[in-house]
Amino acid sequence: MSDTLELARALISRPSVTPDDAGCQPLIQERLDRAGFQGETMCFGDVTNLWSRRGTARPLFVFAGHTDVVPTGPESEWTTPPFDPQVRDGVLHGRGAADMKGSLAAFVTACERFAAKHPSHRGSIALLITSDEEGPAKDGTARVMDTLQSRGEQIDWCLVGEPSSDATVADTVKNGRRGSLNGVLTVYGVQGHVAYPHKAQNPIHTLAPALAELAAADWDAGNDSFPPTTFQVSNINAGTGATNVIPGSVEVTFNFRFSTESTPESLQARVDAVLERHGLDCRIDWQLSARPFVTESGDLVAATLDAITGVTGRQAALSTGGGTSDGRFIAPTGAQVIELGPLNATIHQIDERVTAADLDTLSAIYEGILERLLTGER
Amino acid sequence: MSDTLELARALISRPSVTPDDAGCQPLIQERLDRAGFQGETMCFGDVTNLWSRRGTARPLFVFAGHTDVVPTGPESEWTTPPFDPQVRDGVLHGRGAADMKGSLAAFVTACERFAAKHPSHRGSIALLITSDEEGPAKDGTARVMDTLQSRGEQIDWCLVGEPSSDATVADTVKNGRRGSLNGVLTVYGVQGHVAYPHKAQNPIHTLAPALAELAAADWDAGNDSFPPTTFQVSNINAGTGATNVIPGSVEVTFNFRFSTESTPESLQARVDAVLERHGLDCRIDWQLSARPFVTESGDLVAATLDAITGVTGRQAALSTGGGTSDGRFIAPTGAQVIELGPLNATIHQIDERVTAADLDTLSAIYEGILERLLTGER
Ligand SMILES: [Zn+2]
Ligand SMILES: [Zn+2]
Repeated sequence: MSDTLELARALISRPSVTPDDAGCQPLIQERLDRAGFQGETMCFGDVTNLWSRRGTARPLFVFAGHTDVVPTGPESEWTTPPFDPQVRDGVLHGRGAADMKGSLAAFVTACERFAAKHPSHRGSIALLITSDEEGPAKDGTARVMDTLQSRGEQIDWCLVGEPSSDATVADTVKNGRRGSLNGVLTVYGVQGHVAYPHKAQNPIHTLAPALAELAAADWDAGNDSFPPTTFQVSNINAGTGATNVIPGSVEVTFNFRFSTESTPESLQARVDAVLERHGLDCRIDWQLSARPFVTESGDLVAATLDAITGVTGRQAALSTGGGTSDGRFIAPTGAQVIELGPLNATIHQIDERVTAADLDTLSAIYEGILERLLTGER
Repeated sequence: MSDTLELARALISRPSVTPDDAGCQPLIQERLDRAGFQGETMCFGDVTNLWSRRGTARPLFVFAGHTDVVPTGPESEWTTPPFDPQVRDGVLHGRGAADMKGSLAAFVTACERFAAKHPSHRGSIALLITSDEEGPAKDGTARVMDTLQSRGEQIDWCLVGEPSSDATVADTVKNGRRGSLNGVLTVYGVQGHVAYPHKAQNPIHTLAPALAELAAADWDAGNDSFPPTTFQVSNINAGTGATNVIPGSVEVTFNFRFSTESTPESLQARVDAVLERHGLDCRIDWQLSARPFVTESGDLVAATLDAITGVTGRQAALSTGGGTSDGRFIAPTGAQVIELGPLNATIHQIDERVTAADLDTLSAIYEGILERLLTGER
């Protein structure tokens, strides 16, 4: 069994459901200690974070990741127990195998090999690990970044270990993420009895044409790095349950995933304009979840694509699709940020799994990136 | 204190929240017994109904009403306890004062006076009283009508004692009611993550333009007896509460109040056509609550308008507005049906009330109607 597979199993056997680290970070730091890393545990609220750095000089390369996992769902539906990692036919099964204890293990072993070969590499390597990526993410990466910023610790390159791969390992590197903007729209009317509609004003009726317009709108056409901005309603609720009452208000929850062609301000203004044109009496509570970020080119992207070709013989694609990641907290500090990890096919599902071979491939790629960036051979 | 006021108080002091009669019908029958009525209690499920008839010949005049009342709401908000009827400044306070123990009492005393004056009047007088008008109304008037129909007891004229008056007592007589048609529309989509809308199909988005069209539609223009048909959505619900999930379906509850210019079938066909044109994957569960009915003219309308003028000196207006009533179960048998009762301003509210003078006026009008219809003087 490879070092990476063994470490991944040890991590999976610790049931670290958000925000419980369950001893994963101490296990990682124990390994990194021996490779010359200085560990620092930062606890905020009930979240445990690890900042572990080898070296003090710049450039600083950071691997960002998380030890927490999403709940298992009904354990009886799993082929093998979610926290009892087992390898069957070369496939490692268990909660967190793909998201993201496998890539954590792969990076730790990559560091071990790299530090052994290059004890005096240039710059620094660090790991930024949180136990709250799958949760509110308030006391995790965001708070660690605040701390680093306040003491002037500047990240140059950041690789997030999220499962970016689609059909084969390392076929896709995420070099950015769309922004995410949430809104809660409340439209007010006048409650009444369905038999006396002239004495009431039905907010569902006044909302409907405005909602149709928002659902049909083109927000932007995207660009080379981003697909077009999308608008989706996730929840709509009105009514008391009674069939003879016109409700007094209706609430709509919606989300924008937006490209760098739009801004939170431009989207808000366009929504406001539609609602105003339809004469709605309403309010919107906006919550900006993430601004979009993109690393279009540079040392990090070049080293990563080259390392992938070096290990797999194939070309990886760049993508900014998918959800948000903790990269949103790191990119605004000026760091180049990319994401590279295992296949995402089974994440957050019953029978989450990853092949042992893919973890070894990833570990080799991670090592190749360190070689290209921190040994002065570029 | 007038007989009518005293009887109304006795009825209000019995807390007959649907479907509990709480002894109201026995009290009424005790009075009617002495006036020569034959009482028959018909219990269906937990509902108590009274059919009480004086005479066996036709024409048959029926007063239809109910002893049940809606719940009081918070008793602490009442100025006087809802089931402790009190008269202050000539106003009777209590749950059911206006809907409709006041008109019940007014009709009972009208019968007493009429029977004393005309012990051998032509035709018959009957009362059809249920304890489930405010509830599901399944085991009330509908079941009594089934029984009457099965034994060939045909109603010629029916006066429903519902509170029809608007600004002054007897200013409005309802000579019909609109139909009521309920629908529950479920639109299906494909559930997914808001970050991957191309893998999902948002049923709220596909519904919105169809709903806008339904809300804006003209269904008919009404006619001399009915206002235009109206469509109102009472409830709309979709979403898990999570802000990142596109829901798999959305449910909409709506109601038509419809005139005789439309039919349940014509409305259903038009809704179906709109949904089909918008390509919705959906189903609708329809429930017909009431067909419209109208008594445009005839002996009953003439006698009622004339009796009102005789007592009040004023002309009453005919109307088919408002909600549904148990008249919907009686009109289809071929009876002429009208509704006449006290002011509806406080019904179903805290501090429900009616003036003592209005009850005496109503009782005199009811007696005047019996005079005109059953003494052969027309
Ligand atoms: Zn993750
Ligand atoms: Zn009533």
